[in-house]
Amino acid sequence: MKLITAIVRPEKLEAIREGLESYGVQGLTVSSASGYGRQRGYTEVYRGAEYNVDLLPKIRVEVLATDEQADDILDVIIASSNTGRAGDGKVWTVDVFEAVRVRTGERGVAAI
Amino acid sequence: MKLITAIVRPEKLEAIREGLESYGVQGLTVSSASGYGRQRGYTEVYRGAEYNVDLLPKIRVEVLATDEQADDILDVIIASSNTGRAGDGKVWTVDVFEAVRVRTGERGVAAI
Amino acid sequence: MKLITAIVRPEKLEAIREGLESYGVQGLTVSSASGYGRQRGYTEVYRGAEYNVDLLPKIRVEVLATDEQADDILDVIIASSNTGRAGDGKVWTVDVFEAVRVRTGERGVAAI
Ligand SMILES: Nc1ncnc2c1ncn2[C@@H]1O[C@H](COP(=O)(O)OP(=O)(O)OP(=O)(O)O)[C@@H](O)[C@H]1O
Ligand SMILES: Nc1ncnc2c1ncn2[C@@H]1O[C@H](COP(=O)(O)OP(=O)(O)OP(=O)(O)O)[C@@H](O)[C@H]1O
Ligand SMILES: Nc1ncnc2c1ncn2[C@@H]1O[C@H](COP(=O)(O)OP(=O)(O)OP(=O)(O)O)[C@@H](O)[C@H]1O
Ligand SMILES: [Mg+2]
Ligand SMILES: [Mg+2]
Ligand SMILES: [Mg+2]
Repeated sequence: MKLITAIVRPEKLEAIREGLESYGVQGLTVSSASGYGRQRGYTEVYRGAEYNVDLLPKIRVEVLATDEQADDILDVIIASSNTGRAGDGKVWTVDVFEAVRVRTGERGVAAI
Repeated sequence: MKLITAIVRPEKLEAIREGLESYGVQGLTVSSASGYGRQRGYTEVYRGAEYNVDLLPKIRVEVLATDEQADDILDVIIASSNTGRAGDGKVWTVDVFEAVRVRTGERGVAAI
Repeated sequence: MKLITAIVRPEKLEAIREGLESYGVQGLTVSSASGYGRQRGYTEVYRGAEYNVDLLPKIRVEVLATDEQADDILDVIIASSNTGRAGDGKVWTVDVFEAVRVRTGERGVAAI
């Protein structure tokens, strides 16, 4: 199993959800985050010096998936969150050792 | 070491904390999240079409633990967050490569 | 690749950002969290019994990095978040299986 974590533009949440549902993803978790990438957020010059004004608002979307689905899900997330402009986001995948569906106690891929 | 992440009902936080403390867990991290599982959150019909009204509010509880404790902790979380109704949650475990206790600089299981 | 996650004092965010930028880190993600460690948060005695008053506010700082940089980044975070007082934080590292930069589609270390 894999956990796919995407840090993307908040306004892309709906497109990502739709893309994932069309693909057949059965669940996801969303939370708020902020951050910066290579452009270091917005930069402003004040009295001659440069300042990072702020961390840019992003959302975190997480999807627990089988190993087989993980690469497709990565592609769906990328396709639905890409605008071509700086700040589109990062997505990463980690191995999941165990997963449980609380209500039923199912484990492993049955729990997803 | 393992990191156990639970996405569960907010109203179960107190029961989970108590369960984990009774077991002997020495720390945990809580944050807010939202999401949906197989029932796709609440669904409403509006002008003939179905809409996902919202992502359901959940909390994320994370526990850093030794390999030996991880399975017991999973069981404690499941037991204390299960209501038998849809939406009880998902719990997953990932391997942790390194851990540090900032104040003391201790690493590995000593840091937990 | 590695994902380094630090749960630290909110007032240390600026020092951590500065430390990481000096080291050459090109991006990071911040979110809010709360929790407790070995002192179980603040403890208050009320009518003879002890109560955990609250979960202490913390921030989560996450950095996606190469395997080579991970240990240095751990050191930078520890150095910049340590005050010597209880509650300084925990930092952990997990292996990252894949990473993608959404705008360009780059994968692996090129995506960081
Ligand atoms: N190395 C990193 N570690 C952790 N989070 C990161 C990292 N780089 C970027 N992020 C997160 O991803 C968000 C989006 O990053 P962003 O898309 O700007 O990356 P980038 O490499 O600068 O690519 P681009 O040039 O397309 O902007 C950031 O706001 C931050 O939250
Ligand atoms: N595949 C998934 N990936 C990421 N998060 C998920 C996934 N499935 C569920 N979640 C998270 O867990 C929360 C609870 O899920 P839920 O308990 O409804 O799962 P379920 O499989 O539908 O089980 P049940 O039938 O008991 O409701 C969701 O709100 C969401 O935040
Ligand atoms: N075992 C753990 N699992 C998950 N999160 C933890 C764990 N221990 C601590 N944390 C998180 O890290 C934060 C800071 O922990 P803290 O620095 O108090 O750890 P500690 O072991 O008590 O060390 P110290 O004695 O220096 O206070 C907590 O508020 C919590 O969010
Ligand atoms: Mg950028
Ligand atoms: Mg459900
Ligand atoms: Mg402490």
